[in-house]
Amino acid sequence: MTLECIQKHQCFAGEQQFYQHQANTVACKMKFAVYLPPQALAGKSCATVFYLAGLTCTEETFAIKAHAQYWASQLGLILVMPDTSPRGEDVADDANWDLGQGAGFYLNATQQPWAAHFQMEDYVVNELYDLVKKQFALDGDKIGIMGHSMGGHGALTLAFKYPQKFQSVSAFAPICAPTQCPWGEKAFSHYLGDDQTTWQAHDAVELIKAQGKKFDSILVDQGKNDQFYAQLHPEKLQQICDQAGQPLTLRYHDGYDHGYYFIQSFIEDHLKHHAIALYDE
Amino acid sequence: MTLECIQKHQCFAGEQQFYQHQANTVACKMKFAVYLPPQALAGKSCATVFYLAGLTCTEETFAIKAHAQYWASQLGLILVMPDTSPRGEDVADDANWDLGQGAGFYLNATQQPWAAHFQMEDYVVNELYDLVKKQFALDGDKIGIMGHSMGGHGALTLAFKYPQKFQSVSAFAPICAPTQCPWGEKAFSHYLGDDQTTWQAHDAVELIKAQGKKFDSILVDQGKNDQFYAQLHPEKLQQICDQAGQPLTLRYHDGYDHGYYFIQSFIEDHLKHHAIALYDE
Repeated sequence: MTLECIQKHQCFAGEQQFYQHQANTVACKMKFAVYLPPQALAGKSCATVFYLAGLTCTEETFAIKAHAQYWASQLGLILVMPDTSPRGEDVADDANWDLGQGAGFYLNATQQPWAAHFQMEDYVVNELYDLVKKQFALDGDKIGIMGHSMGGHGALTLAFKYPQKFQSVSAFAPICAPTQCPWGEKAFSHYLGDDQTTWQAHDAVELIKAQGKKFDSILVDQGKNDQFYAQLHPEKLQQICDQAGQPLTLRYHDGYDHGYYFIQSFIEDHLKHHAIALYDE
Repeated sequence: MTLECIQKHQCFAGEQQFYQHQANTVACKMKFAVYLPPQALAGKSCATVFYLAGLTCTEETFAIKAHAQYWASQLGLILVMPDTSPRGEDVADDANWDLGQGAGFYLNATQQPWAAHFQMEDYVVNELYDLVKKQFALDGDKIGIMGHSMGGHGALTLAFKYPQKFQSVSAFAPICAPTQCPWGEKAFSHYLGDDQTTWQAHDAVELIKAQGKKFDSILVDQGKNDQFYAQLHPEKLQQICDQAGQPLTLRYHDGYDHGYYFIQSFIEDHLKHHAIALYDE
């Protein structure tokens, strides 16, 4: 397996890097971004946060738009930013932006034509996870996961499916109950088929209901001027966390929308949430 | 004159806004961005910094990539971000990215086919300047200017041509001596013609030589791994400032390149430079 560094930029005394590799799980070339804080460049074993992006985004979106490097540099956090789906001319796609390339939903598809490449769950939690553990100076016992929108769904579901792999979790405007919203219903019926019992393993609300408390805290921020609010159902996440005894800090913010101007406004709190959970435990 | 707000996003308790208007000076529709900090939204008269972007950039580049809003929000600075040239199908252009649309060089062209629209100096220091003074809660006596690369050239030259309009100035990797580098020689010969005496009014080194000290301080940051270093001549800026008695803080940074990962790493210092100059005088 060859890992090719395609861009490298000094940034807050650390390095913003972009890589490309032939990924077995998704059977195509994948790109991902890594931010290495100065502590990692100096050889210190650092805590790491995976960031899963939303519909239409790429491995570049968070690196460019979230303004996270300032805080990652200060806190000594490595950031790992995968792409949102397999890519390529021979990878299945759809004319709409909420299915296919750019819309992998961080699950393993079982249906055709998707199953050949759309194995993003396996890619993130196994192949990329193992790759970055081996490649970079990260502390394998201190790995968190966060995400936005579709990637918030990914962060919550993968954290609750693999709590032994992720020790902290947070999300911006996550799709909390994809089995109960148009984006999720469309994606899951294509990727997983019509048997809706198979959908539940990819729905944060259903997973928390089944699994109970797994984390000391979850941080979720939600703008009240979010143009996709009807897709997100944060109230269902609050309700199930209350029932399950899973501590949740769900903050609603007047005026903020769904985009990266919202994310950058609260990224400090998210990275501090992960740094406290990962470094102070 | 109609000013149309085309995007508005809450950001660090302020607002990132994008506007469009029919601009007389450049005879086309122009876009620009404004960041209003919470202090401005609350009605306080705020100091303002114009940011001039580099070749190929637009009014969106700095707003998305520079990570400036965090500091502008804390410091109470309004940011004004114009596009880098006139735009449109009937606006002259060139096949290369260093001339024509995206490459206005913040001067008033005198040559055909450029003169009809390429009047960016007039646009920035008169039309846009007056427009934002009238439209937003800014303090007309506290206006600074900064820029990057071609925009660093713009910031330095416009500051020294119009010191009554700009009370502070800084630049990232500016083109310090455009009359002595390929980018500048190409642009000036097209926009201003072959009489090189007309070029000097658009060259920071020549302007400082002619005008002497105009500012208490200038802050310039320059990456030592800048891929365009040969175009920039920071050493000529240092030399002329030393000769002219113009205080200059020129910082060279190991490892940093020409892009926005460099800019974001030092934007805090630039906005504090302007805030100190504008608010504390």
